[in-house]
Formats: sequence, C-alpha cells, structure tokens
Amino acid sequence: MKRPHKNRPKSTTVEELARHLNCRFEGDGNTPIHDVSSLERADKGDLVFLAEPKYRNSLEKTKASAAIVPIEEKLDRIPTIHSEHPYVSFIKALEFFYTPYRPEPGIHPQALVSPSTTIGKDVSIGAFVFIDEDVEIGDGSILFPFVSVYPRVKIGKEVVCHSFVSIRENTRIGNRVILHNGVVLGSDGFGFQKAKDGSHIKIPQKGIVIIEDDVEIGANTTVDRAALGETVIKRGTKIDNLVQVAHSVEIGPDSILAAQTGIAGSSKVGKNFIAGGQVGIPDHITIGDSVIIAAKSGITKNLPSGSFVSGSPHLDIRTWRKAWAAIPQLYDLIREIRKLKKRIEKLENKLRE
Amino acid sequence: MKRPHKNRPKSTTVEELARHLNCRFEGDGNTPIHDVSSLERADKGDLVFLAEPKYRNSLEKTKASAAIVPIEEKLDRIPTIHSEHPYVSFIKALEFFYTPYRPEPGIHPQALVSPSTTIGKDVSIGAFVFIDEDVEIGDGSILFPFVSVYPRVKIGKEVVCHSFVSIRENTRIGNRVILHNGVVLGSDGFGFQKAKDGSHIKIPQKGIVIIEDDVEIGANTTVDRAALGETVIKRGTKIDNLVQVAHSVEIGPDSILAAQTGIAGSSKVGKNFIAGGQVGIPDHITIGDSVIIAAKSGITKNLPSGSFVSGSPHLDIRTWRKAWAAIPQLYDLIREIRKLKKRIEKLENKLRE
Amino acid sequence: MKRPHKNRPKSTTVEELARHLNCRFEGDGNTPIHDVSSLERADKGDLVFLAEPKYRNSLEKTKASAAIVPIEEKLDRIPTIHSEHPYVSFIKALEFFYTPYRPEPGIHPQALVSPSTTIGKDVSIGAFVFIDEDVEIGDGSILFPFVSVYPRVKIGKEVVCHSFVSIRENTRIGNRVILHNGVVLGSDGFGFQKAKDGSHIKIPQKGIVIIEDDVEIGANTTVDRAALGETVIKRGTKIDNLVQVAHSVEIGPDSILAAQTGIAGSSKVGKNFIAGGQVGIPDHITIGDSVIIAAKSGITKNLPSGSFVSGSPHLDIRTWRKAWAAIPQLYDLIREIRKLKKRIEKLENKLRE
Repeated sequence: MKRPHKNRPKSTTVEELARHLNCRFEGDGNTPIHDVSSLERADKGDLVFLAEPKYRNSLEKTKASAAIVPIEEKLDRIPTIHSEHPYVSFIKALEFFYTPYRPEPGIHPQALVSPSTTIGKDVSIGAFVFIDEDVEIGDGSILFPFVSVYPRVKIGKEVVCHSFVSIRENTRIGNRVILHNGVVLGSDGFGFQKAKDGSHIKIPQKGIVIIEDDVEIGANTTVDRAALGETVIKRGTKIDNLVQVAHSVEIGPDSILAAQTGIAGSSKVGKNFIAGGQVGIPDHITIGDSVIIAAKSGITKNLPSGSFVSGSPHLDIRTWRKAWAAIPQLYDLIREIRKLKKRIEKLENKLRE
Repeated sequence: MKRPHKNRPKSTTVEELARHLNCRFEGDGNTPIHDVSSLERADKGDLVFLAEPKYRNSLEKTKASAAIVPIEEKLDRIPTIHSEHPYVSFIKALEFFYTPYRPEPGIHPQALVSPSTTIGKDVSIGAFVFIDEDVEIGDGSILFPFVSVYPRVKIGKEVVCHSFVSIRENTRIGNRVILHNGVVLGSDGFGFQKAKDGSHIKIPQKGIVIIEDDVEIGANTTVDRAALGETVIKRGTKIDNLVQVAHSVEIGPDSILAAQTGIAGSSKVGKNFIAGGQVGIPDHITIGDSVIIAAKSGITKNLPSGSFVSGSPHLDIRTWRKAWAAIPQLYDLIREIRKLKKRIEKLENKLRE
Repeated sequence: MKRPHKNRPKSTTVEELARHLNCRFEGDGNTPIHDVSSLERADKGDLVFLAEPKYRNSLEKTKASAAIVPIEEKLDRIPTIHSEHPYVSFIKALEFFYTPYRPEPGIHPQALVSPSTTIGKDVSIGAFVFIDEDVEIGDGSILFPFVSVYPRVKIGKEVVCHSFVSIRENTRIGNRVILHNGVVLGSDGFGFQKAKDGSHIKIPQKGIVIIEDDVEIGANTTVDRAALGETVIKRGTKIDNLVQVAHSVEIGPDSILAAQTGIAGSSKVGKNFIAGGQVGIPDHITIGDSVIIAAKSGITKNLPSGSFVSGSPHLDIRTWRKAWAAIPQLYDLIREIRKLKKRIEKLENKLRE
C-alpha cells in the first residue's frame, strides 16, 4: 500500500537549474548537477552555495561542480548561479533534489478510526493510528503510524503528525502544521491549590490548545491545555525539541523557540520572538514584540518590545556583557580592595602622626 | 464502545450552586449560571471568582453573572457566593461544570492483554494497549490507547495512564495516580563504570520504580529505575512535564516539581518540597523538608529543612538577592576601584614629598 | 509466545562466585549467597562491595553475608572476595544474579513488518511494531512493542529498542545499541531561513542520523537529522534522558552526556567528553578531546582538549571557583568600597587643609 519516496538523485544541468530558480548563470550551462551539498563535503556533480563572503575561501577549493552565489560575485573556476538571496535559492534547489518521506494517501486497514470522523481528500492515516469520536481531518493531512487523537479534535489541511504524537481532547490545529515524533498537545496544565493539610488539590484543566497555521513543533515537545480559555501557538511560530509550553500561554506569530526552552503558565509572548535554547520564562510574564532572549536566560519580569536580554536573572544584553566581563576579575578585585584598604590605613596612620 | 464525555455545559442557578458548594449567597438566587470562566474572559451566564483583593477592579467590570468571593466581600452589581476558600470553592464549581474526558470501562478488542493479567472492576483498557505477563490493574483504572506495560507491573485503583506511557518491568504504582502522555517509568538508570580503555561498562539496573498514591506526572517526564533498591515518588507529589528523575532518587511526599527540573542519581528530597522550573540537583544530595528552590537553580550541596535558595551555584535566597542586585554594578565598580587607586597613589605621593 | 524473564534469585556460594569472578576469597567458601545489594540495604544472603575506603565503616556493620573488597583489604567478620577492580567484579556479580527483561525471539503476529524487511537470526519484534519499507535488522536485535521504523533504516546486531522509539527514514544504527523508551532518531533539524515578511522558510533536512556501535540513549532523548550530511553519535557514547542533539552534531566516541543537556546545530565534540546535566552547547562550536563541562554550564566558545569548565557563560573551572567564591561577598564589597571612598575623601580634605 505504501510506496516510500526513494529520493533517487535527479540529474539536471546548471542551465536547467538556473531556469528553475529563476536566476542568471555564468560558465558552462551544460555542467551536470546530481545533488546539493555543503561546501566542505561537496564532490563532483554537487551544487553548493555561498551565503557569506567569509566562506569564499572554501569556495575556491571546493570539489563541487557549481555554486549559487550573490549577484555581484565573480568566480571563474566553476559555473555559478547568481541569486539575490543565495540561501533562499539554495533551499529551492534542496527541494528540487529532495522530498521528505511522506506515506501515500489512504487509511491503513490497521488504523482505528471512529465512524464519526470527518476526513478530507487525500488524507493518509497510517497503521496503528487511533482516532476517537467527532474528529475532523482536513485535505492532504498525514498521520504517520501511532498517532493518538482524542475526541473532538480538529486538524486542518496538509498537517503532518509523526509517530507517537498525542493530540488530547478538543485541541484545534490549523493548516500546514508539522508535529514531530512524541509531541504532546493538550496534556493537563500543572495547576494545583494547596490544601490546609499540605496536600495539593488538582485544578480541573477545562481549556484547550490551539495551534495556528504553519506552526512546526519539534520532537517530544509538550504543550499543556489551559485551565480556562486557551493555550495558543500563533501562526508561523517554530518550536524546537523538548520545549515546555505551559497552560494558557500565548506565543507568536512568527516566533522561534530553540530546544529545551520552557514557558510557564499564562505568560504571553509577542510576535517575531526569538528564544535561544534552555531559556526559562516564569508564569504571568508579558513579553512584547521582536524580543530576543539569549540561550540559558532566566527571565524575571516583563520585557518590552525590542528587548534583547541575557542571563539568569536576565539583564539587558549590554549590561550583561559588561557584568560578565567583570565577573572573572572578581577574585582579584577583592584582593585589590584589601590592598587599597591597607594603603589607606597607612595613609591615615601617617596623617595621624 | 466508547462514548466520549461531551461536557455540554450544565445549567444551574446561583442558589443551587451555592447549596452545592455549601456556601451562603447574596443577590438574586435565580440568576442562571451555565459555565465557569476567568475574570477577563467571562460572559453572561458565567461564574467567576475573586481570590485576591488586587483583582477586585476586574470584578467591578466583569460581564460574569455571578462571582465566588471571600466571606467578608461586598458586591452589589452581581450575585455573590461567599466562601472561606474562594479558590477551593471555584475548583468545586469547575468540577461541577467540567469532567475531563475518560473512556468507558471495558477492554478494547484491539488491546493485547496477557491472560496472566489480574484486572479489577470497571477498568478501561483502550485500543493498542499492550500488557505483558503477570501485571495487576486495580479497580477503576484507565489505560488510554497506546500504553505499554512491561511484565510484573502493579497498577493500583483509579489510575489514569494516557497514550504512549511506558511502564517498565516490576514498576509499582499506587492509587489515583495520573500519568500524562509519554511518561516513562523504569527506564534504566544512567550508570556506567569507566574501564581502563576509556570505554564505559554498563552497570545493570536491577532496582525498580515505586509511584505512591495520588502522584501526578506530566507529559514526557522520565523516572529511571534504581541500580539496586528503589526510585520512589512519594504520596501526593506532583511532577510537571519533561522532568528527569534519576535512579534511586526519593521525592516527597506532597512535593511540587515544575517543568524541566532534573534530579540526579541517589538524591533524597523531603516532604513539601517545591522546585521551580529547570532546577538541577546533582547526585547524592540530601534535601530536608519544606525546601524551596527557585527556578533555574543549580544545587551544589545538601539543603537543611526550611531552606529557600536560588542561583547556580545556589545561595540562600537573601544572599542571592543581594549578590544579584550588585552584579549589574560590577562594571562600574571596577572603574570606581581604579579611580580610588589613583586617588590613593596621589595621596601617597603627596605624603612622600 | 513470550516468557518473561523471572529473575528468580539464583543461589550460589562464596567459593563458586569467587571462581566465576576469577578472584581469590577468604573465609567460609560455603557461605550461601542469594543476591547482591547495597551496603545500606543488605540482608543475610546478600553480597555487597567496598569500592572506596570511606565506606569501610558501613562494611563493619552490614548484615550482608559476603563482600567484594580490594586485594589488600582485611575483614574477618564475613567472607571476602578480593578483586583488583571491586566495582567491575561487582558488576559481574550483578549480571550473574540479574538479567534485564528481554522478550523471546520471534515476530509477534500483531506486528506490521514490510515484506521488504531484511531480518537477521533470533530477532524479537513485539506487538504493534511498525516497520516500513527496505529496513534491515541484524541478528539478535529486540524491538519491544510499539517501535516505529520509517523506511530505509539499518539496525545492527543485538540492538534493543524499547517502546515508543521512533527511527526516522534512512537512520543507520550500529551493533549493541540500546534505545530507551521514547527516543526519537532523525526528527527534522531545526533549520529555518527568515523571509522578508518575517516568516520562516523551512530548510529541507536532507541528511541522516548515524548511531555507532555500543551507544546507549536515554528515555525521551531526541537526535535530529542533519540538513546535509550526518548527525553522528560515535562508538561507545552514552546519553542520558531528555537530551537534545541537534542537526549535524558529532559526539564522541566514549563520551558521557548527562540528562537534559542540549547541543545545538553543527557542533562537534571530541572523544571521552563528559557533560553534566542541563549543559547547553550552542551551534557551530568545536570541543576537543577529554573535555569536562560541569552541570548547568552554558558554553560560549570553542574548548580545546583537556578543558574543564563551569558556569554560564563558562569559565575555566579554577577561575569559576574563585569568581563564585567571591560573588556572595559582592554586596558587602560594594559597601566596603563606599567606605573606602569616604576615607579617601577625608584624607584628601586633610591634605588640602
């Protein structure tokens, strides 16, 4: 039933590829191109690209047969394809030579799909998928084997869910969303109220999770449902592996969260946000637009739009840089101060004489 | 076979609800209540609650039809239900309007359950559940689809295991435990002995994991089995998502571990412990009762009961606050010291004259 | 079909065990030994071991019936087995009394295995395993229930994959590799190119993941595929739970990565590397051989071979220790400096008079 995509390298020429990328080329247009590669690994038949001038040296030595370069770049050794955005053109070339593995449309006979499910056109539902009642799945979506869909979930069009994705009850997922293996959407928010006897009373987590269009979520990342209302990952936001998004959080649109970052309950993050890896944001924090948080930072208060912070507790990036340039000197500083103190004492004694 | 809980909002009145909550009410007892909500999202027919006086302003403006308020609170705008513990009463009201989705009792025909399994009354075993030999499951427990139970596991009463939970061999789970999606109990402890040639010899992980009553464990959290003896999560302890509990660790009872916290091998944590997110506790550490560790802290030594620490390496919370108030001044401090040094030199030169 | 390993304690004697461990013994060789234990938990019939002299006191009080001790150790209370490497002998004794649970060879009728799969001898493929096209599995490998194998994966000999392991397309796994529950190999690298409108264009992740021989990977750890080329975990490297290994990373051989550590894209780590828990390594970093990074460190630049660093941003361990000894004094330091300043002013005023 399934025909895995073989990704046999296609063969093309510099001229054909330049036409496909809508770019001008220089050199021998008949040069055959079989694959794309990085500068360091490239071999005969490979296409490489030069994004930054600092790698120009490697380009002079590459075994590649052609290169995508900036418009103004000159290179006689090998044919060149000239692009205003070499990286974007390179991505297009990558897509020409490589399509990620996707199973064929159809419902596997070993999938268990509730008869109440609404399924769009060209949907692929793999073996050992379980779909509970009243679920909707849009056209072209792909559920790899082992996806668990709880009741009343809505999945948009062209969504990809990899193995071992959990989508808990009432979750709503937009179009073109990619969920990597082990992603959990809609697990209970971590909400408890302390009782007099020291035990913790569970606060029912009545809310839901909403994943908007074009969001991608990395392997084993968890997004908790809200206690009331919604946890929302907004349009175009990309989340790396092992990230924690707690109850009632809102993120994005067009934000980037690197691996192992955590955002605690009810915090709101604006658009074009960038968090490095292992960042921690506590609960009930408001973060503006276009904020950058350096890796491993621990945020302690609201951040206005345009902030760039680092450290735990966080500081403005310039203050942080100054402070951390000073910290290694701290030990010598203390000795220095002791010496100064003695010199002052000496002076005081002299004057007292 | 399964009838998903629809959670259609029930309709009630302020008077009925007050009776259900065992509370006094003021205002029109016939006011219809359809749902519970937060202060900011509330609409007509919603019940809200006021836990802290600082939110009183929002209460004056809410569209909600009624509010749970402290005993002494006065509010004429809308009917009020008066509670000694408004949050606890609100949780009860939440439970009145909302029951989390739970599948019906019964064993799904697509589950694979070893004939040697002992299964209590009203147990729900979903599709694609695999139960290996000599497992016991107590009354009223629920295994959602895709739970993997290794041999000789004991699961107590009214336990809930969500999809993709792994319960490795010999694990023992108490009553009313909730395991969210992707939880792993009993994976091998990370124990190796370095050989002369630099390679690492695996230390067999012979021990087990014990999860006591009323524990809740968040999505994709991992609890390793002990090398010898037991890894124990004690009664009533609540663990958030993506937490790591290493071999031979003991935690609780009634402790709270926020997301992405990690506790390394053989460390022991007392009761009523609170760890913020992304806390790290190294191996062989002993932590007393009622200890609080602020988010992102890295612990470096044993902590006596009642400690409240922050930072990495950790400091007492007061020392930490002072130190971190000082760190941003460090750069200016160094310049200041240089200036003082010059002034001292000047004085010294003058006195030498 | 499956006969779970019962691990009934075998009975032996000190003499027999000494022979098995290839060691000399002292005391009554007929003393029966039923199990191994830790010093603190040992009971009659147990074997314990003394690795470090500091635990000798516990040995004097243990209820154990025998002990593995260093060659030169003298102990009259109980029989002793004398080993040049007591810990290694103890591991052998552990293996004598305990074998981890492994299912029997055979393909479960509820597994879905593509007819194009090449399967070696004595392979165990559990229930609800899904194997897509063109996969190879070597002799003696074990796939527990619920393993998802994407197309064109190669799995070596005697590999163990626990429940809910995802092995994405084209991944190559060596011999004797252990993958704990929830491990993800080959999820897409987190690679995006920012477009002019602020949205993020996905960079196709064409590369693969290679796991070399004797690697062990902990529960819910994720290893991303490379954009181009390979992500490689080299021979003998051991990775704990919830670790993130990003695209195009290379680690090892014989390295140790403790839990919740993250390594970002394209970083290269040498052999005999040790990372404590929750370490963060950013992208495009090169780390030499035999480097040690203390827990919770955040690396900021390349590390030459032999480095031992700590902190975030990292410092050489000695500098870090000095700095962090000083930080708690920072607050008092500032007060001290203020006082010195006043004393200098006084002196200046006096001299001006």
